[in-house]
Amino acid sequence: MTMKVIESVTGMTVFSRQAHLQHQRIGLVPTMGYLHEGHLSLIRLARKESDRVVVSIFVNPSQFAPGEDFEKYPRDFERDQSLCRQEGVDCIFHPPAAEMYSSVHRTYVITDQLSAKLCGLSRPTHFQGVTTIVAKLFNIIQPDTAVFGQKDAQQSLIIRRMVSDLNFPVKIMVAPIVRDTDGLALSSRNKYLSPAQRAAAPVLYQALQEAEHLIGVGETSSAKIREAMMTMIKAVPEASLDYLAIVDFQHLEPVREIASGTLIAVAVYFGATRLIDNIIIV
Amino acid sequence: MTMKVIESVTGMTVFSRQAHLQHQRIGLVPTMGYLHEGHLSLIRLARKESDRVVVSIFVNPSQFAPGEDFEKYPRDFERDQSLCRQEGVDCIFHPPAAEMYSSVHRTYVITDQLSAKLCGLSRPTHFQGVTTIVAKLFNIIQPDTAVFGQKDAQQSLIIRRMVSDLNFPVKIMVAPIVRDTDGLALSSRNKYLSPAQRAAAPVLYQALQEAEHLIGVGETSSAKIREAMMTMIKAVPEASLDYLAIVDFQHLEPVREIASGTLIAVAVYFGATRLIDNIIIV
Repeated sequence: MTMKVIESVTGMTVFSRQAHLQHQRIGLVPTMGYLHEGHLSLIRLARKESDRVVVSIFVNPSQFAPGEDFEKYPRDFERDQSLCRQEGVDCIFHPPAAEMYSSVHRTYVITDQLSAKLCGLSRPTHFQGVTTIVAKLFNIIQPDTAVFGQKDAQQSLIIRRMVSDLNFPVKIMVAPIVRDTDGLALSSRNKYLSPAQRAAAPVLYQALQEAEHLIGVGETSSAKIREAMMTMIKAVPEASLDYLAIVDFQHLEPVREIASGTLIAVAVYFGATRLIDNIIIV
Repeated sequence: MTMKVIESVTGMTVFSRQAHLQHQRIGLVPTMGYLHEGHLSLIRLARKESDRVVVSIFVNPSQFAPGEDFEKYPRDFERDQSLCRQEGVDCIFHPPAAEMYSSVHRTYVITDQLSAKLCGLSRPTHFQGVTTIVAKLFNIIQPDTAVFGQKDAQQSLIIRRMVSDLNFPVKIMVAPIVRDTDGLALSSRNKYLSPAQRAAAPVLYQALQEAEHLIGVGETSSAKIREAMMTMIKAVPEASLDYLAIVDFQHLEPVREIASGTLIAVAVYFGATRLIDNIIIV
């Protein structure tokens, strides 16, 4: 079966309805394109769970604030198509913006409290854009399973909350972070980095590894962990900290003592480029 | 087939999945119970459109503000069941509140601008509660069609907006207002009225009829129409106006000249009881 590229909501709806009529399970991987190995790992997980894999490629304007990188966000649809084809994707949903947001669009899905923390502090309208587009994709594509990446830990928590609160009949799976050989978490935004910034960027993961090491040898004070991580990040002149959060991975509230389920999440600017990374303590 | 009463989300999901596997179309009538002929007209419309009719009966706490009538809202589930049985309803979905809202519920569906006008002025969080519960019911019940009443004109507009904006695969139908012999629109809240208030309440429809009459003989000035309606309502000592809106039935913006598609909507307090009514100019 050849891979389909569908640009219209109606076309996508027909594809999904036919799949369901044939009792095929649909796995969705929502992306903004410019695919890398991280995305491909999500596609492979969706493949295992599903009879039909749909990858949506849509740079969603409503999750960017004015002045953010919506216009310059990297796009390469030809390359994305060939990667999807190699992975045996059944369908790419690639709508133009006007197909997704009419001029009279007024409806948003909001997740109180969770959306205002961590990345929400510097991007207050970001998660409202994410939950809204994901709700739309779920209604259009009707997936049985949807796969997200652990790199966007807060996003995955908010999506799970939304699915539970609004009773979407979708199983959410979250795949581990895929890293470059030097530890930098893969991200389409890594492309923005200058050579010097790229060389400095692994400090995010190094700081997280240091935290893991300290916890491994018995440290439980989040203040101590934070101090050690801050020292490492501050030592890198290219890096400018946005936030370093040590929180429970349910309400995103700061914890004093590290425990199972603690999320350590970090966001750092390299010039105008903001990168994020995280670990969850097991 | 006997009518089912389902109280759990899981049970409802199973019912809907089985119906769809048998290629049956599901028609949903979302209600807060205490059914009257208005609701029954919605059920009959759903019946025509569907193989399986589901009536949800749920007094939704999130659409009442503190101090509103959530606690005293009339309930009579025995009577509702027998009315549904008479109408050939296939299933009543009657969940307890804890089944619909967990203690960690954080997600809401909001419809900007439209929700702040008319009824939203005196009930600022009302429509957020409505859109949220309707989104949940759509996800749980997966109806092909859902039927709402024209009495709640703003609600029907907001639901249509939400369905379009979030791509819910649900056909929305809106049934005409059902009135008592003296013209009062049927409402579960009419039960709150004292005999004197009940006798005075038809003034809503009388004022709307006067507007219709004036428009019929060529009046197009909304100021003139408003003046005539206000005079009638002010003449009734039991009535205290909440709002009288003459607006386009798309953005709910005031219009100067009456045209096809103009909504004339009125909300009046009789003591603590707030009643609404409306007409749309054809």
